[in-house]
Amino acid sequence: MQNDAKYMARALELARQGRFTTTPNPNVGCVLVRDGEIVGEGYHHKAGEPHAEVHALSMAGEKARGATAYVTLEPCSHHGRTPPCADALVNAGVKRVVAAMQDPNPEVAGRGLYRLQQAGIDVEHGVMMAEAETVNRGFFKRMRTGFPYLQLKLAASLDGKTAMASGESQWITSADSRRDVQQFRAQSSAILSTSATVLADNPSLNVRWEELDRQTHDIYPKSMLRQPVRVILDSQNRLTPDLKLFSLPGDIWLVRTHKGNETWSDNVEQLIVPAYQGGIDLVVLMMQLGRRQINTVWTEAGPTIAGALLQAGVVDELVLYLAPKLLGDEARGLCKLPGLSQLTQVPEFKLQDVQQVGEDLRLRLVPRS
Amino acid sequence: MQNDAKYMARALELARQGRFTTTPNPNVGCVLVRDGEIVGEGYHHKAGEPHAEVHALSMAGEKARGATAYVTLEPCSHHGRTPPCADALVNAGVKRVVAAMQDPNPEVAGRGLYRLQQAGIDVEHGVMMAEAETVNRGFFKRMRTGFPYLQLKLAASLDGKTAMASGESQWITSADSRRDVQQFRAQSSAILSTSATVLADNPSLNVRWEELDRQTHDIYPKSMLRQPVRVILDSQNRLTPDLKLFSLPGDIWLVRTHKGNETWSDNVEQLIVPAYQGGIDLVVLMMQLGRRQINTVWTEAGPTIAGALLQAGVVDELVLYLAPKLLGDEARGLCKLPGLSQLTQVPEFKLQDVQQVGEDLRLRLVPRS
Repeated sequence: MQNDAKYMARALELARQGRFTTTPNPNVGCVLVRDGEIVGEGYHHKAGEPHAEVHALSMAGEKARGATAYVTLEPCSHHGRTPPCADALVNAGVKRVVAAMQDPNPEVAGRGLYRLQQAGIDVEHGVMMAEAETVNRGFFKRMRTGFPYLQLKLAASLDGKTAMASGESQWITSADSRRDVQQFRAQSSAILSTSATVLADNPSLNVRWEELDRQTHDIYPKSMLRQPVRVILDSQNRLTPDLKLFSLPGDIWLVRTHKGNETWSDNVEQLIVPAYQGGIDLVVLMMQLGRRQINTVWTEAGPTIAGALLQAGVVDELVLYLAPKLLGDEARGLCKLPGLSQLTQVPEFKLQDVQQVGEDLRLRLVPRS
Repeated sequence: MQNDAKYMARALELARQGRFTTTPNPNVGCVLVRDGEIVGEGYHHKAGEPHAEVHALSMAGEKARGATAYVTLEPCSHHGRTPPCADALVNAGVKRVVAAMQDPNPEVAGRGLYRLQQAGIDVEHGVMMAEAETVNRGFFKRMRTGFPYLQLKLAASLDGKTAMASGESQWITSADSRRDVQQFRAQSSAILSTSATVLADNPSLNVRWEELDRQTHDIYPKSMLRQPVRVILDSQNRLTPDLKLFSLPGDIWLVRTHKGNETWSDNVEQLIVPAYQGGIDLVVLMMQLGRRQINTVWTEAGPTIAGALLQAGVVDELVLYLAPKLLGDEARGLCKLPGLSQLTQVPEFKLQDVQQVGEDLRLRLVPRS
């Protein structure tokens, strides 16, 4: 029905308001409608806090009785850190539940909807499913495969260059693009980079709340600021505790093939992963990140790791910022793909979205399977 | 007035219908309006044939008396291959003339509007001037500077690569992009390329009517097909008459620093231009092309000439096709810019337009001055 889509669209809008804070939980929104009127709304804010349904039921109060609940994800049926939402909906006397999709979390996986049906509630699912998928790309991928959803950020000139031959690179892209990157970082569970990048630029690799846009400030007050885990590949144990990023708030996982003897502060952990081709085994690393409940990984690193991630097959999305400049053939390239000799072997993508960001252009692409 | 803009928009639409055929003349459209009704319309089809005003007046007949004429360019005042349009408008009894802009052609340059005023006609100009400028970028640039408007076509992967290290390059971009290129070729006075490209690919560098799109076929029947002059840089006199492009209809100007002794068919002319840095003096060449009434040059060539044109400052527009692929650092680059060492020196552009063309993306950019 047309109204179902309308209310579900609102529920999805609500769900997205949690995108900076719910990790490792999914973003979920809920709308309660009785007699064509929205009587309750809510979304999940943060792991450990109430689910979307609970917020909406509490807003609706007695009006929940006989209402239809629109939820962007199947209500949970298990006791996690909060009691099952399916029970809450039943107890409130909700008459009908429309879910955008089943929860692929093996702890739910249809049991929530079944429980509602058993209680005599009218249950539907599949309304705006495609949209609901995009709201939780990372959580769903992790639930289905054990791997996080990995975004590879690249920034280059029109001719695919990232720096002059001398290494001079500040800044190829504009301040607008750098602010846009802050939005992506803030929505990610983890930021992935390398010791090469850290040693070259001594970056912070954190979220700077002030640089987020105004709409984000409205739904994401500074008091809720969450720093994504910084995951730094350091296969040669080259990093030292004096570097800037270690002094900033937020966890850092140093990915190494063997422990170093440095003394690290409490926010730093050494994560031991097998070596592969002189570096880190990236597939094993991604499995470990998944096991540590990392839903989404935002990658900012140089041409070697960009190529290695692509060749390992763990990239789900390219986010490419193009600056309207030409640097010429002698400048430094975007991506190393050793061993490629034929056009039929090159990684191909499908364009998802193009947007102008200040003077630059931002392309979002997914690998062609 | 709002209606002025409405009728001028229609006149511009008509003008653009001549974009495949009027060179070296400008595209011009004319609309005659009496009592709020369009009584005559026309556009310039082809050099030597009637101007837009003549077509519109002939359609209007007696209804031209007392009408307003909307013209996308100041009516001509001189006897060229056709009599002056200003006189024709006066003789037909037109009451008011609205021109989008003055004609920068030194043979006109305000004299057409003056003549109309002297005859007691109400004259205005400056309506939709910016749009009118874009319809005749090439003609206007040539009239103002003596140089043609040069478009540099580039096609690359997302990382700015045009071919594998082996040279394999067919095809980086999609069939849709190649058809799109045909549209640009067909609108150009000349197509510029190099002996290196001709020897590597043995291309036709012509317009293939069948590959133009359906809307183009509607306004540009095959019987009117015009082949742009193919201008081929051949500073080492390396080209030989057996190459494919010489056997195809249409003129070819071989740009050399000294004449060769080959025997060429009638459609081939050797154009002698001074040498510069081991190649052709591109600035002198552009002046010569301008003197030969070339309004627009569409360039399809390799990284050396792309960089040389940019460094010579003769590029007015980049048309960049990006294929959603990554070829890796070892592949061949888009553009050679020898001598650049600092980011402040690199050519910068302003994005004008982005469009998806099949699977590829087409960017149009103009140099930042």
